[in-house]
Order: sequence, then C-alpha cells, then structure tokens
Amino acid sequence: MTVTDIATRTYNHGWRLDPIIRSLLDTDFYKLLMLQMIRAFHPEVEVTFSLINRSKHIRLADIVDEAELRAQLDHAREVRFSKKELIWLAGNSFYGKTQMFSPEFIAWLADFRLPEYDLRKVDGQYELHFEGPWTHTTMWEVPALAIINELRARRVMVGQKRFSLDVLYARAKAKMWDKVERLQTLPNLRLSDFGTRRRHGHLWQRWCVEALKEGLGPAFGGTSNVLLAMDNDLEAIGTNAHELPMVLAALADSDEDLRRAPYRVLDEWRQVYGGNLLIALPDAFGTTAFLRDAPDWVADWTGFRPDSAPPIPAGEEIIAWWRERGRDPREKLLVFSDGLDVDAIERVYRHFDGKVRMAFGWGTDLTNDLVGCSPDGSRALDPMSLVCKVTKANGRPAVKLSDNPEKVSGEGEAVARYRRVFADHEIS
Amino acid sequence: MTVTDIATRTYNHGWRLDPIIRSLLDTDFYKLLMLQMIRAFHPEVEVTFSLINRSKHIRLADIVDEAELRAQLDHAREVRFSKKELIWLAGNSFYGKTQMFSPEFIAWLADFRLPEYDLRKVDGQYELHFEGPWTHTTMWEVPALAIINELRARRVMVGQKRFSLDVLYARAKAKMWDKVERLQTLPNLRLSDFGTRRRHGHLWQRWCVEALKEGLGPAFGGTSNVLLAMDNDLEAIGTNAHELPMVLAALADSDEDLRRAPYRVLDEWRQVYGGNLLIALPDAFGTTAFLRDAPDWVADWTGFRPDSAPPIPAGEEIIAWWRERGRDPREKLLVFSDGLDVDAIERVYRHFDGKVRMAFGWGTDLTNDLVGCSPDGSRALDPMSLVCKVTKANGRPAVKLSDNPEKVSGEGEAVARYRRVFADHEIS
Repeated sequence: MTVTDIATRTYNHGWRLDPIIRSLLDTDFYKLLMLQMIRAFHPEVEVTFSLINRSKHIRLADIVDEAELRAQLDHAREVRFSKKELIWLAGNSFYGKTQMFSPEFIAWLADFRLPEYDLRKVDGQYELHFEGPWTHTTMWEVPALAIINELRARRVMVGQKRFSLDVLYARAKAKMWDKVERLQTLPNLRLSDFGTRRRHGHLWQRWCVEALKEGLGPAFGGTSNVLLAMDNDLEAIGTNAHELPMVLAALADSDEDLRRAPYRVLDEWRQVYGGNLLIALPDAFGTTAFLRDAPDWVADWTGFRPDSAPPIPAGEEIIAWWRERGRDPREKLLVFSDGLDVDAIERVYRHFDGKVRMAFGWGTDLTNDLVGCSPDGSRALDPMSLVCKVTKANGRPAVKLSDNPEKVSGEGEAVARYRRVFADHEIS
Repeated sequence: MTVTDIATRTYNHGWRLDPIIRSLLDTDFYKLLMLQMIRAFHPEVEVTFSLINRSKHIRLADIVDEAELRAQLDHAREVRFSKKELIWLAGNSFYGKTQMFSPEFIAWLADFRLPEYDLRKVDGQYELHFEGPWTHTTMWEVPALAIINELRARRVMVGQKRFSLDVLYARAKAKMWDKVERLQTLPNLRLSDFGTRRRHGHLWQRWCVEALKEGLGPAFGGTSNVLLAMDNDLEAIGTNAHELPMVLAALADSDEDLRRAPYRVLDEWRQVYGGNLLIALPDAFGTTAFLRDAPDWVADWTGFRPDSAPPIPAGEEIIAWWRERGRDPREKLLVFSDGLDVDAIERVYRHFDGKVRMAFGWGTDLTNDLVGCSPDGSRALDPMSLVCKVTKANGRPAVKLSDNPEKVSGEGEAVARYRRVFADHEIS
C-alpha cells in the first residue's frame, strides 16, 4: 500500500523553485576564516570576482537557462544566516580552538547578504561578475559555482526516466563505495571533503560526506562545507585561498611591495589565527619563488598546501626546503588538494608515508564523479572545470601565475609584470 | 526540510509484522494454469509438498526464527484473492487468449485459502510439509519458498547500518543494470522473469522486473509473477511444472502406466489448453527416455522446456528429435530456465540463434544476485538452493529423476524402480 502524502504533494505543486543554496553556511569554511581577516585588515577594498569556464567546449549558456540561473542567484541573495547557524559558529570549536570567530564578527554576519551580480550571455557562455566590497563579493565564489554546476546537472537529467535516474545514482553510489573501500586500506590516511564548489548537487554531496563518515571513520577528517559539518557533527576544514595573495599583490604599489605581498598575507593571517590554521599556500606566483624569498618564520608554520604543481615533486621541494631551514619534515603537514582521484591519493600517500604528515582535500572526484554512470552512456554529467576568481582589486588587475600554466589568470600585461617580478632569481 | 509524516510513522509503530505474502497472485502463473487442470482431472488426489534444502551447509533453522516463520506462514493463510484480482484474472488475456480461466474456476478461487502446514526443526533445518488435497497444497510451493528466502535475507540484514544497506542495494542495482546492458545487445532476445521463488525479497523482485521492462522493452516477455504482471501490465508467463508428471507417475499402478504417465499429463493438458501453452517439460524422468517413447503428436506441440540438462546438448537433442519426426525446428520454441546467468544466456542464444525460436526464463541470477554487494564482504546473502517438491501422492512416494543427478528426489526404492522403468532402452 503506497500512501501518497497529500499535504506534501500539494505543497510541491506550489514550488516555484527548488533552491540550490538554502543556507549561507553551504559554502567552504575557509571563506569565513578569510572573511574575518579581510574585515580586520582590508574592509575598504573593492574586489571583483568573475566566473571563468576553463572547459570552453561546454557552451554553458546553451545548457543552463538564464531565467533559471537568475532565479537561483536571486534566491541565494535572499538567504540570511539563521540564529541557529550563528550560535553554532560562535559556540563550536574549530581546529581545537573555541571562539574562532569574534562576537563582533558574528554580529556582523547576522546582517550579511550576498551582494548584486552582473550576468550576461556572450557567445554561448555566461559572463558573471560580482563587483563590490571584498567583504561581500568573496562570499559569492562557492555558491555561484555550486549553483551553476547543479543547474547544469539538473538540465541534463530533465526528462530522464525514473529507472535511468535510479540506475544512475545506484552506479554512482557503488562507484563511490568502491573508492571508500580502497581508501580503507591506507592506515594513516587523513582525508577531507573539499568538493562543494564542483559538486553534482547538494544532496549528492551530502550523501558522499555521510558515506565517508561511516566508511572511513577517524580517517575522515571532516568537510570544507560548513553546513554539512554542522549537520553531521564533523570538523569544518580549510584555511585560506589564492584570493588573499592575489588581492594583496594587486594592491602593491611597487615591484618590491609586489614581491613581498605573499608574505604580508601570512603575516596578517598569523595575527588573526594560529596553530593548525598556519597552512601556507605557496603557489599563487610560483612555489619556487615563494620558497626562495620566504622569511625564516614561514618555516615555523604548520605546513603547506601545494595546489597546482604535480604533488610528489611539489612535496619533495617543500620537504627539501624545510630540511635546509633545519626543520624536521615529520613534524610538518602537507595538504594535497589539486585534482585528486583515488589513484593519486594512493600514489602520494605511499610516496610520503612516514616522511611527512599528510592530509588530502578530495574535491571533484568525490562529489561529482558520475562518469560512466548514465544508462544512456551520455557524458553530459562529466564534471567541468569552472572557477570563480578575483579579477580586480581596487580597479587594478589581479593575477595568478600558479605552478600550472593552465591555471594562469589575469591580463597579459599584468601577467608579464608578475612573471618578471617573481622570476627565478635572487632578490637584488 | 524533511517532513516526517506523523500518521505513517504512528501506523508503523503498530506493525506486528511486515508481511511477505500480501496477495495470492504473488505466485507463479503456471500454478494457476496447473490448478485449473488439477481441479478438472484430479480433484480428489491428496498430495504432500515438502521443503528441501539442497544447500545443506546453510543451517536454516539457526538463521530464520521459528516464530517469525510461523507468523509469516500464518499471515499467508489469511490472504484471499481480492475482487480486483479475480476480475483481472477473468478479464485479462493470457498468451493471446481471453477467458483462459473458466467462470467456475474463478468462483472457486474466491473462497480459496492456503491449507495448513506442518513445521518442525530437525538438526538445524526446518522440516516443512503441506499435506492435503492437491488443489490446495500445490499453491504453497511458491509462497513458502519466497517467505523462507526473504526471512533469511531479512535476518542477515538486521542491524546493518543505513549506509551499508544503501550501498548494498546501490551495488545490486548497478550490477543488475550491467546485465541489462549486456542483454540489450542480443537483437532477437526474448526473456522473462522466473525468479519469484528464489527472490531476495518482493520489493527487490519488483525493482528488477520494472527495470527489465524499461531496459529491455519488447525483448522482455513478461514475468511468471502474476501480481507483478498485473501491476505492471506485463504478460504473465509460464505453463506447467514437474509436479504434474510426478503425481501422475506416483498414481500409476503398473510399470506400463508409469511409463505412459508423462504423456498422459500432456494429453490432459491439451484438453484444457492449446496454442502457445503447449510447452512440454521433458526431463522429469530423463529427456532421452521421454523423447524416445513419445507419441508422434508430442512433436506437434509448440516447444519444450529443457530444465535440468546442460542447455546446448539438451536443445540439440530436441532439435534432432524434431527433425527425425519431420518437423522444422525454426518453427519450434525452446524455453531455457535452468540456473541461467547472463553468460549462459549469451552462450545459448548465440548457439541457437536462427536454428530455433528461444525464450529464456531468468530466475535466481535475476532476482537474488546480491553476490559481492555487501560492504562487509559477507556472503550471507548469496542465494541458496531451496525447493518445495511433491513427495507423496495418495500416500505413494513421488519421484523425480531429472537429467541432473543433483536434482533427483524421492525415496531410494522408488527411485530405483523409476530408473528401471525409464531405462535407456526401447519399450518392449
């Protein structure tokens, strides 16, 4: 006997929208940490974030309906932090520390809303920009990406039959659990979910996170998604991102200031946070230059998150640097988070096990791997490479060089200047 | 927002039992066809059906709780044909024929209930017998097997975590759909579900049948399960079973009568049914003897269902026999139904494609293949070989020789007599 719940059914008839973003905590934890620091040091800076589709062959504007996209973005702008969420942010401990967020910051969040957006279609793609105070535009990055990724997936799945969808998710679950079983064999593994921005959808990310909690137990360190951390009593994971050195570099007046910008970021960061949060991101303008020019106190930090160079050489370079500076790598932490799949995790784990502490931030391959799962053999759900990056700060172009030529962002002239300033030679 | 439906939840609190058999149509179609014939020709015969566990290493009585088993058997005895079901049986066409069941038979079904059972535990196994009029005990076979198989599966899954179960079924669905995709490549395939008696559970069989309907389209001929046929507008599939020759053989007074019993079955059958239902089961006492001694009119039947010999030699033997008798095998049908998996279906299909019409009755490998799906690696859900066979007719022992020595059933002395009577020599 199937009982149809008439009230639920009737309520559903009235849906105008199935909202993708239903909470401002449905974002990455490091966004909140960075936001608190931005408010403390750079409350007046104006920053533009822009959508960049690195998978240019996917004509997003031909797939995702503009009205639907606007409806989702508009809905996200209506969402506020709820009382429960703010109480949890204030009362929970993060990385072993209570009161990570100041009462003043929490009070400020209570009035927070996402700022306006600027959307247009150009040649089969969306141009989407968020312009305004850094303290507000920074918060668009993750929800904007999550919205576009999920809208694309929904569009692909519209009209699929009930069994096709059932089999699609059954295969995705089976595929995911096969990965969990492989990861279970790595005794010292420590891995977290970093997949919010690239997820197939919110509900699927939730399933993946809950599956990791049950399947990996203590090896599962937590999730970068603050909402899922709260709902599942998991650790919220994350520290900081490229936007900090990119904005501070853009604000630098001289080449010397530019060269010092990455360390200024770390200096501001350590004034706000300490301990396990002292994880440096070395690759904004090239890891080699970063290490070469770093002040000695950077070697006292807990660790690094190499994010664009191949992980084994990048880790070895950092380990050698620690040794040169007289630090013991076995007391240090490397966080790997760039395009990891289980093969890569196993390879990196086996290479570094016993040499350095490791943590893995598992993203797209965790929360958006439905590859090969569609009963119709379609590849339309394969993940795409979509980012939302700082493109301007106080009107000046923002640049990222990265260790990976495909991840360079910025205008040609500015990129050339950065290349010169961070070139592979000693500071004069 | 998850809304808990309070009424449903409260209703569930009051459950004393989650019944396995909720409809008397939740059985194999051939049971109803045979029942109509049994009522016409043998209304007074007393037949005992008995449970036989061929997987002796599985100590069923240590797994399945006796009180639970009794509760399920008792519940099945409370179930009656509903009006809707009887109207459908009367009004639906089967094998292209309307009014397959006489109004008198339908009226008789309205008062039908399953008869008493005799259950006891002996040495870690259940002895379960159904004694009484053949017109009643025959109807226990399928529900009794379905109940025991599902109770065993439920017991194995009690206490498993939510995610383990979710992954278990996700894998089973993915595994099942991989099979569907292989079967989709066979252009002239005709396949039906024969998996009721060995199913993992009713809901799982329902999923598998609905998946085949969507996945195979017209290649899916239907299901032997009458309830699922009705609910999904599928053809109900099946003709007759070994119990007919076994009972008629047991009733035979002389060796000559015994030798003629398998053909007497067919003669009675053709008086009730015709056309596509004229499918003979040749192996009750050995296919070779059956073919050797068969009257010529048996070669006019639509086809055979070889059910215990290896399918390719069995099919070739029958094809050669048709040719000897001057019939064109390409107009004949072979129904394969013995322990088929997809490998076997492909092999048999490729061997006979173009030589003879074929249909496949897919059983255990369809509805009870969770092998390798348990996240804990357990094999406790692997299917077992459980049958419910005629053991006596009017007090005399019933025997099956079969083409497979493992499927012999009956008492030693009676088996010896049957072996002698059906021995591999010409009738004198």
